[in-house]
Amino acid sequence: MTASPDEQQRPRPLDVELLGLEPHPDDQGALSLVVEPHLCRTDGRFYGGAALAAALAASESATGRSALWSTTQMIATAEIGERIRLDADVVASGRSVDQVQVRGTVGDRLVFSAVGGTATPRPDGLRATGQVMPRVPGPDDCDDWRRLRSDDGASPPEVGHHLISEHREAPIADRSADRPGHMALWARLSPARATASPVMSPAALGFLADMIPIAVCRACGVEGAGTSLDNSLRIGGPAETDWVLLELDAHVAFGGFGHGLVHLWSPDGELLGTGTQSARLFTIDDFVNRRSR
Amino acid sequence: MTASPDEQQRPRPLDVELLGLEPHPDDQGALSLVVEPHLCRTDGRFYGGAALAAALAASESATGRSALWSTTQMIATAEIGERIRLDADVVASGRSVDQVQVRGTVGDRLVFSAVGGTATPRPDGLRATGQVMPRVPGPDDCDDWRRLRSDDGASPPEVGHHLISEHREAPIADRSADRPGHMALWARLSPARATASPVMSPAALGFLADMIPIAVCRACGVEGAGTSLDNSLRIGGPAETDWVLLELDAHVAFGGFGHGLVHLWSPDGELLGTGTQSARLFTIDDFVNRRSR
Repeated sequence: MTASPDEQQRPRPLDVELLGLEPHPDDQGALSLVVEPHLCRTDGRFYGGAALAAALAASESATGRSALWSTTQMIATAEIGERIRLDADVVASGRSVDQVQVRGTVGDRLVFSAVGGTATPRPDGLRATGQVMPRVPGPDDCDDWRRLRSDDGASPPEVGHHLISEHREAPIADRSADRPGHMALWARLSPARATASPVMSPAALGFLADMIPIAVCRACGVEGAGTSLDNSLRIGGPAETDWVLLELDAHVAFGGFGHGLVHLWSPDGELLGTGTQSARLFTIDDFVNRRSR
Repeated sequence: MTASPDEQQRPRPLDVELLGLEPHPDDQGALSLVVEPHLCRTDGRFYGGAALAAALAASESATGRSALWSTTQMIATAEIGERIRLDADVVASGRSVDQVQVRGTVGDRLVFSAVGGTATPRPDGLRATGQVMPRVPGPDDCDDWRRLRSDDGASPPEVGHHLISEHREAPIADRSADRPGHMALWARLSPARATASPVMSPAALGFLADMIPIAVCRACGVEGAGTSLDNSLRIGGPAETDWVLLELDAHVAFGGFGHGLVHLWSPDGELLGTGTQSARLFTIDDFVNRRSR
């Protein structure tokens, strides 16, 4: 299997552009990134999807292999303008798979900590898709999804990952009452960004997929979101696509904490990966009250 | 909400009994366990479900809270008779949730590394169940599941977690061809063990649930299993039950690596938690050939 130049280059050009990855000024052996407005939540704090993306890209850079999975634990916040240093440690290295740990730090502050792995898939290795994509209209037939973009329903905030990404709500046909959190969004990086590569990177998938608490809150019967405790992603084969369908679902919530899943589908029904996440849940009212205090 | 004495005691008596948890002889501040035959796979190596269980129990012990989630990365093996030291580090502590990291080591050898969290659920906090238990016969109407218990179909091996756990295959009614890996097993700790507590612990759930690669291989159209790269569990509310239904499903496999999920249900349809896992897959033929070399 011959790798294309894009596949051989780590970090991938798309990830460098998305995250602003560059060698750390004080240590050229470590990657780093500066927290820019498009890498934040709308409240100006570092976005969990960006932490997962950075961990995936740093794992690939440390091993030269493609990211297979990562669980990125969120520990502390980082503010706009701060530089996050990324240290990747290959804790086990095998013939076809490496196990990696990544720490993201601002000085002595541990912002996130990731465990994960990268792999060299075997061309003749076992393969399967265990799920089927839900029936939804295509992205051109879905409306822009403005939830959480603005607090007052008016102009979108000037900080947030919506600055470089786009989400459209895709109504699921034959939705079952048994799955009250089941919902879908079409997502892509803004076209200007996506031109860097026709192949979606694991990091870009992770960046787009951080939406699970919204589905968990929907299952709870409220409009809400969550503070991520982690972002996890498990990755299938490569795919050339710009739009990705985020099929979100709730698992269980209890005592104000909840868990759920997101399948990431290409438009032609290929399962590109699956994310899971745990979060402390809050309602939109909680969120607005907290920000206005 | 008043905690019962059992809930206040960390590590929980059930986990102490299951894993043999005790203070480390060289450092009473750290927990440890000795790798016994019931904590192994049938090939005599430390079982991934036991590593996840140890990480969950150590997280609870370090924080006094109930385990909410853990991703336990498998790094190296440990052999029967070796003592694994468990070091838990609370990396963030909030009003209702702590973020924790746990390392399992034998001397300088890092056996596993976990990121996770523990929480104090709020009685009035958001709650929901986003899924419905599949229709299956009860455990009394299901046959013992001998797969992987013996290589030759005869007597079970003398090493393995089957020494203290029991699994029965539960055929799913209305199984869909869209989900080729979808399958279910009733599981419990052997009755002699389960008497320590009527409440299943997060650790015991994690111990029972390490079966996902079997469903992923089934989706690939082969009988097989996998070498776990991690074991992850996200936990709902407490439940008093002995039998747990493991509802297994495949997500995606590519190039010999695969990912999937397990929902853990109480017999009355309460979702106790959800596990996910990535693994290097192999067929049973591969496994037998490897062992006979």
